[in-house]
Amino acid sequence: MGKRIGNQTIQMDLKPSIEFTTSVVGPKEGAGPLSEYFDIILTDDTNGQDSFEKAESSMMNRAIVETISKAQLEDKEVNYIFGGDLLNQLTASHFAIRDIDIPFFGLYGACSTMTESLSLASLMVEAGFAVNAIATTSSHFSSSERQFRFPLEYGAQRKVTSQWTVTGSGAMLVSNKKTKGKPVVTFITTGKVKDYDITDVNNMGAAMVPAAVDTLKAHFEDTGKNPSDYDLIATGDLGSVGGDLMVKLMKEYGYDISKNYIDCGDQIFIKDNTVCAGGSGCGCSAVVDCGYIYKEMLKKKFKKVLLMSTGALMSTTSSLQGESIPGIAHAVALEME
Amino acid sequence: MGKRIGNQTIQMDLKPSIEFTTSVVGPKEGAGPLSEYFDIILTDDTNGQDSFEKAESSMMNRAIVETISKAQLEDKEVNYIFGGDLLNQLTASHFAIRDIDIPFFGLYGACSTMTESLSLASLMVEAGFAVNAIATTSSHFSSSERQFRFPLEYGAQRKVTSQWTVTGSGAMLVSNKKTKGKPVVTFITTGKVKDYDITDVNNMGAAMVPAAVDTLKAHFEDTGKNPSDYDLIATGDLGSVGGDLMVKLMKEYGYDISKNYIDCGDQIFIKDNTVCAGGSGCGCSAVVDCGYIYKEMLKKKFKKVLLMSTGALMSTTSSLQGESIPGIAHAVALEME
Repeated sequence: MGKRIGNQTIQMDLKPSIEFTTSVVGPKEGAGPLSEYFDIILTDDTNGQDSFEKAESSMMNRAIVETISKAQLEDKEVNYIFGGDLLNQLTASHFAIRDIDIPFFGLYGACSTMTESLSLASLMVEAGFAVNAIATTSSHFSSSERQFRFPLEYGAQRKVTSQWTVTGSGAMLVSNKKTKGKPVVTFITTGKVKDYDITDVNNMGAAMVPAAVDTLKAHFEDTGKNPSDYDLIATGDLGSVGGDLMVKLMKEYGYDISKNYIDCGDQIFIKDNTVCAGGSGCGCSAVVDCGYIYKEMLKKKFKKVLLMSTGALMSTTSSLQGESIPGIAHAVALEME
Repeated sequence: MGKRIGNQTIQMDLKPSIEFTTSVVGPKEGAGPLSEYFDIILTDDTNGQDSFEKAESSMMNRAIVETISKAQLEDKEVNYIFGGDLLNQLTASHFAIRDIDIPFFGLYGACSTMTESLSLASLMVEAGFAVNAIATTSSHFSSSERQFRFPLEYGAQRKVTSQWTVTGSGAMLVSNKKTKGKPVVTFITTGKVKDYDITDVNNMGAAMVPAAVDTLKAHFEDTGKNPSDYDLIATGDLGSVGGDLMVKLMKEYGYDISKNYIDCGDQIFIKDNTVCAGGSGCGCSAVVDCGYIYKEMLKKKFKKVLLMSTGALMSTTSSLQGESIPGIAHAVALEME
């Protein structure tokens, strides 16, 4: 049975496996450098629905249904879904799963939701409370722009530090089955809300870095590990600006992550003046983790990986009221045994 | 160690205790029939803050800090906070805990969040992943009206089925300490998202009833219990309209809950033409559970209680797009040993 080590970490003993994953992405993501790793690439970012919000729900529904189907399970054999998204009141998730007959825990950690859901799904399986659990999340560029920023038709100018919300959804099936050749979950480090008084909503990467640094430091301190113990350390969506800052700040604390660090948001798109500093959104780390990283783990290119999705915790109301942007990051360590 | 029974339920073995609770309410709730049970009654619903959103955060912060202080614990002795609220992107919770040095899992289950957070906090303690964990949630009448409905100044007319969002926050400390004379958690039944095509946002009680019925039936089927095994079955915020429907529907399924059933939203206010069908919001079941029910359990008026907060899972965008209102309900059974 898993146990607490240090202040923020659970060391797994059973070590649940990630049996299957599914990634569903939009056309722009599907045309990016990680194209070959995605399971389903939409040709139309509305996915045949009559709103971007419904499109987002349909992507998450497909990611979940496809994952359960790959595992040849029925709904009743999956004990929980842990999931969430960026839309107000998690409507993308709720409408995605209303026809799926599985108990649901709704989560909100902004773009940290993939590792938040993976943490809780893994802990429930580790404890024996679940045999199989789904961890999922989604985001959609156009539903996010409408909700958080401006109508697309307005054509607002973007800053060099702006990021482009990923249209995509990922789902993982965490299980006590532990099929040989599948990655297992070894450590869960849960993050705290960190607020360093950053108020620029066009530089969310920088707003999330202090939380990512805090969680990564806690992970190393709790486990006694150091950066070279991992083949890959992958933050969720700090983008190129936040990613550079992450490496610099970790160095100041005595950890050199420059050799094995990537940011999912920095990898997913072809760089141009639309995506600016890179990808963001819950869907960003979801599809890069479920696609590129998971599939390269199966091939043993990466044997030890630390996933750390990162969330910027503001709303349009909090920003209008002059509040700063707190951040949070949750880390999950995976290993090919 | 706790184990799965039936399809949706965990039967606890350790049975974590609820060591302390704190309820903070606004003036209207403080003038209601449950007045004597609340720990802190604000004299001003802005709590001295310059926005209703900041007021809500300050209430939740106070509920958490007060609960930890009652237990004479330091932040580092509390392993997790599970919490959420109704505001977009959970800003009430994030700003409430940004100065509290405890790992955080953000949850969204609309008004079901009190039993969602209590479920996960209890499961983490049961599994030994936490020694102490906080479960918390909040809502605020004026921040909710601004976000979900109309500006207060507009003076929109209310329907007889309308409910009044409770201004309040509750926090519970779940612990493996099991001090004699404190209630323990015995069963956790996790709900599914249920959508029965109800679209009237002024009748959320009715929208949530199918989910509440589904979870309560699952609880009885999984545990082999029946209504008479409980002194009290308390839904979160179905109000008087939804509560009546709940009793009727359960009867159709062969369960008579008429003798020991209450709805928190039906209890908290003096009935008048402002509150109409009763209270709602995450804060409703939070303060009634943390105040009235918990305190009457300590006095052994109630020895076996089933708490079941209920959530209506719509957003303003989903309603404008013509979507129906799915619901969800999570049940937690408590017992005085």
